[in-house]
Amino acid sequence: MKVYADIKSGNCYKVALICSLLEISHQWVHVDILKAETQATSFLAKNSNGKIPLLETENGQYLAESNAILNYLADDTALLPTDPMQRALVLQWQFFEQYSHEPFIAVARFINLYLGLPESRAQEYQDLQVGGHKALRVMEDQLSQSDYLVGSSITIADISLYAYTHVAFEGGFNLSSYPGILSWLSRIRQLPGYKSMDDFNLNKENG
Amino acid sequence: MKVYADIKSGNCYKVALICSLLEISHQWVHVDILKAETQATSFLAKNSNGKIPLLETENGQYLAESNAILNYLADDTALLPTDPMQRALVLQWQFFEQYSHEPFIAVARFINLYLGLPESRAQEYQDLQVGGHKALRVMEDQLSQSDYLVGSSITIADISLYAYTHVAFEGGFNLSSYPGILSWLSRIRQLPGYKSMDDFNLNKENG
Ligand SMILES: N[C@@H](CCC(=O)N[C@@H](CS)C(=O)NCC(=O)O)C(=O)O
Ligand SMILES: N[C@@H](CCC(=O)N[C@@H](CS)C(=O)NCC(=O)O)C(=O)O
Repeated sequence: MKVYADIKSGNCYKVALICSLLEISHQWVHVDILKAETQATSFLAKNSNGKIPLLETENGQYLAESNAILNYLADDTALLPTDPMQRALVLQWQFFEQYSHEPFIAVARFINLYLGLPESRAQEYQDLQVGGHKALRVMEDQLSQSDYLVGSSITIADISLYAYTHVAFEGGFNLSSYPGILSWLSRIRQLPGYKSMDDFNLNKENG
Repeated sequence: MKVYADIKSGNCYKVALICSLLEISHQWVHVDILKAETQATSFLAKNSNGKIPLLETENGQYLAESNAILNYLADDTALLPTDPMQRALVLQWQFFEQYSHEPFIAVARFINLYLGLPESRAQEYQDLQVGGHKALRVMEDQLSQSDYLVGSSITIADISLYAYTHVAFEGGFNLSSYPGILSWLSRIRQLPGYKSMDDFNLNKENG
């Protein structure tokens, strides 16, 4: 199994984290997003949407979209419940992540961390703060009631939301008014096999 | 089962369409998005993210996110394959829809159809055209090779992508250079139980 990815990206980190938690052996193929390697003809032939992460299975099938990859890898493991409503709630949180969380928090982080918050994007950055805090508030509502997003044990919904939440400070988000999120973050950090984005960064960057 | 929704929204139409295709009986509870009824305290108590569609099951559980609702309702039906990779590909297309398709095509449609394309949003509208056509090109790549997005029969991936694609012209998108998409649209229109957004509109608006 190959994972085409760049560990700087939270969407790619989701895949690195699940592989570490489940001890899934894989080959990590580094694709540099800042050099636009996702738009190279050879990459577009693998994923016409030109995005990472991308999974290539042993028999040469390709699967894109970080959250679809998580569902595929978590199938038949404790990270994905079997009860239909629980499973649907996992998906609910993953779609929430892609629609209401990532477009604010990941983009604010990109503007701040990679572009150095240029004046030309200051207004956009402010707007992203509003949307990001709205998403954090929705997570806090749940995490003040349960240990994990869907019930009392970790699922791939938590991996999806953890990715950009644990580096949200790099997008200017102060989490101190979200006690539920803070304890959830520390609960995840204590899982066997857990690695942060920085832990991976040291190993994978030249991988 | 109750569906809180507004048929003007493509995300809500997905739920109306699957209920019609699978003959799922339900109560449609009209929530007016243009009147911001999703932000009312009584609605936020049901879904703290303040968005429709929202499903309420017989035993009072709530499920948000259109694509999570589709997965829940399609479970154990022909609209959702059982093979793990096929299932993951269905999700791949649904996450693609939420991240790379809907934010361009649905928003362009909103600006054009509901706001009447004001001068202040003309530049944004142009940018959305570029992103929307990129998404249509990715769909065309697949639909020039297979009858449906995941293989030779319809899945909920098709319902998800159909929703805003069949009204993309209302966002200024001309589909004439996408022959694969055009035949796929007509294939879906011929399914038993099929209804367009306008078909529903006549019945549900006062529902
Ligand atoms: N919805 C996708 C988003 C993936 C995405 O946006 N990937 C970025 C890196 S975080 C990328 O590949 N950007 C390069 C490009 O668009 O060319 C997912 O969850 O996998
Ligand atoms: N990702 C959500 C998006 C839902 C969404 O954006 N719903 C809109 C109508 S299309 C809405 O409720 N807007 C009202 C609001 O945000 O207050 C889904 O797929 O269900």
